[in-house]
Amino acid sequence: MVSQDLGVVGAGVIGLAVAWKAARAGHRVTVFDPSPARGGASWVAGGMLAPVAEAWPGEEAALALGEESLRRWPAFADELRAQGFDCGLSAHGTLVAAFDHADAEYLDVLARYLAGIGREATRVTGRELRREEPGLGSVRSGLLVPSDVFVDNRRLLESLLAAARQCGAEFVAENAESLSGDSVTTASGVRHFDTVVLCAGAHSGRLHSDLAQAVRPLKGEILRLRARRGTLPPPRHTVRAVVEGRPVYLVPRDDGSLVLGATQYEAGFDTGVRARGVRELIEAAERIFPAVTEYELTETAAGLRAGSDDTVPYLGPLSDGVYAATGHHRNGLLLAPVTADAVLAWLAGRPGPEGTEQARPDRNTSEERTDAGVGQR
Amino acid sequence: MVSQDLGVVGAGVIGLAVAWKAARAGHRVTVFDPSPARGGASWVAGGMLAPVAEAWPGEEAALALGEESLRRWPAFADELRAQGFDCGLSAHGTLVAAFDHADAEYLDVLARYLAGIGREATRVTGRELRREEPGLGSVRSGLLVPSDVFVDNRRLLESLLAAARQCGAEFVAENAESLSGDSVTTASGVRHFDTVVLCAGAHSGRLHSDLAQAVRPLKGEILRLRARRGTLPPPRHTVRAVVEGRPVYLVPRDDGSLVLGATQYEAGFDTGVRARGVRELIEAAERIFPAVTEYELTETAAGLRAGSDDTVPYLGPLSDGVYAATGHHRNGLLLAPVTADAVLAWLAGRPGPEGTEQARPDRNTSEERTDAGVGQR
Repeated sequence: MVSQDLGVVGAGVIGLAVAWKAARAGHRVTVFDPSPARGGASWVAGGMLAPVAEAWPGEEAALALGEESLRRWPAFADELRAQGFDCGLSAHGTLVAAFDHADAEYLDVLARYLAGIGREATRVTGRELRREEPGLGSVRSGLLVPSDVFVDNRRLLESLLAAARQCGAEFVAENAESLSGDSVTTASGVRHFDTVVLCAGAHSGRLHSDLAQAVRPLKGEILRLRARRGTLPPPRHTVRAVVEGRPVYLVPRDDGSLVLGATQYEAGFDTGVRARGVRELIEAAERIFPAVTEYELTETAAGLRAGSDDTVPYLGPLSDGVYAATGHHRNGLLLAPVTADAVLAWLAGRPGPEGTEQARPDRNTSEERTDAGVGQR
Repeated sequence: MVSQDLGVVGAGVIGLAVAWKAARAGHRVTVFDPSPARGGASWVAGGMLAPVAEAWPGEEAALALGEESLRRWPAFADELRAQGFDCGLSAHGTLVAAFDHADAEYLDVLARYLAGIGREATRVTGRELRREEPGLGSVRSGLLVPSDVFVDNRRLLESLLAAARQCGAEFVAENAESLSGDSVTTASGVRHFDTVVLCAGAHSGRLHSDLAQAVRPLKGEILRLRARRGTLPPPRHTVRAVVEGRPVYLVPRDDGSLVLGATQYEAGFDTGVRARGVRELIEAAERIFPAVTEYELTETAAGLRAGSDDTVPYLGPLSDGVYAATGHHRNGLLLAPVTADAVLAWLAGRPGPEGTEQARPDRNTSEERTDAGVGQR
């Protein structure tokens, strides 16, 4: 392997995973971010690794890439652990709960689709669901997806940051103002690299004209709560449901806290938390898991997902040689391992892992269009 | 006047007002509080100075004391201003909004009662109310109470702290562990004083056995929100209403923010913010002033009011000579001026202002019981 000078723009989960794996592989890595780990959507997120429960007919490219990354997650976590860092990867699966007839019909469609493509997902009664999670509200029925697990995103981010530093990655606490295939410019000057990878999430469209239309900020509000004395502890699984047309999830943490997310709407680069978003999330959670009403609300936050029209990220070279590793939509945590492995492959002159070809940045502009789904979710 | 050594236990609005006025009058003042201004219920509060809108038949003692203090508020604010500090005392009054028949009947009772005792309060139609505040929801009718104004409680607390320091008050950043009529004990030792005043709010009952049953923590959750681009600005008046049986208020700040309070329940010394409390407050506010749904939620907090059974504070000597200035229930901000003036009077050997006699700490145990109301609110 030829060791390269690698510039990484952005230190969310993608930038940190790329920086860690590249530095570990012997490259000289410099990461640009004014607030590594804590500054963006990855820090705000819930940490679901859920390609199957989020699957839908027509979105096969997203499912294939998600599953490819999920397969890489255990080894990714093991490598981190071998270096002395834990990321709170859970073995508990995901429950999807249906509260009314429409929800149940939606789960029927999803279950049929998953069965047809050979994925494990079990349709269960409300009684069976409550046997798994006794604190659930009056659920009608549900779907068990054992393969969709979750990670403690904040522990992961801190671990990746520390592990990358331990491997020699250098962190520059500045925003990239501009970049090219071989340089990154900040307020304090220009730095030159052999390769530059753009991992700036929702801000990527502002940093590269090829992505100006392709990556848009997709705002999400999210709450953190904690069980109090006398309340039920959080569920053991991730619990998902659609309440009044809005998808909601509850992801437990092993300290008795709970992440409750997430709204989804377009509001530019605004990260203010709206009263309405908070009220809607709490209302939905009270229906799904009534004990949450007495939980302590410990944090409200909003993050900007790097939205892409077809929910598939942009992985690969842009027109000027900058490599894109962005546009991960709702799936940055899930897709971090496959994305980092893709960057390692590019640095070695090899193609990326299975599924990354369908994520190439020019897929929607090149003549030979792939059949990646284009539905908006 | 004989200058005294005065120990003040607690630096919420009562302790700070006492410390400032006493130091200004030439006494040597020492205040004990690990977190002056910011540590307690006064910091969390909304800042309403509203004895009239909170009046109710049978609670004449609370009304009399509240009005006595409200009369002292302009001079109190002027004195602070003369020393260079502003407290954001507003001239805008209070609107009470009724959304259904039951609310309207409640306002009828209140309006008749206030008219009977000669207080200014005008019963108005929903249309008239919306002329005052165009952003109100579908109100049925209302009550205008021009004399009930409000103060920016945080600006006030910071002003009082700075003004007290400027007058020579000394602040010890420690909790009082015990106290007597002439001493205060902290972890670092015993300090002796001519007079000790207990202003420890909800914690007073833990510091003095005479108050153990009399002062109880009365928890309240409260939110702070801010208008965003494209939303209506906050109302100009304090707007109060009862939504689903729960009293709610919106108090504007002159920076485009809004204080939304407050739940009220007994939960010991727990200051965790419950999910339910946040959801209920937002729901209620959306009904009263719908634009708030798009406001940014900037803070959630809970405070412990110093609850007293009859809503009247405890002002005067306890059995061992400690002076009590606590148990201000929902009215610490309102009652700060009259309380500080009472302490000045005691230091000079004079009786306190009008209304304070009915607030003496032994009122419910002495043989000649006053006819202060004893209803629980």
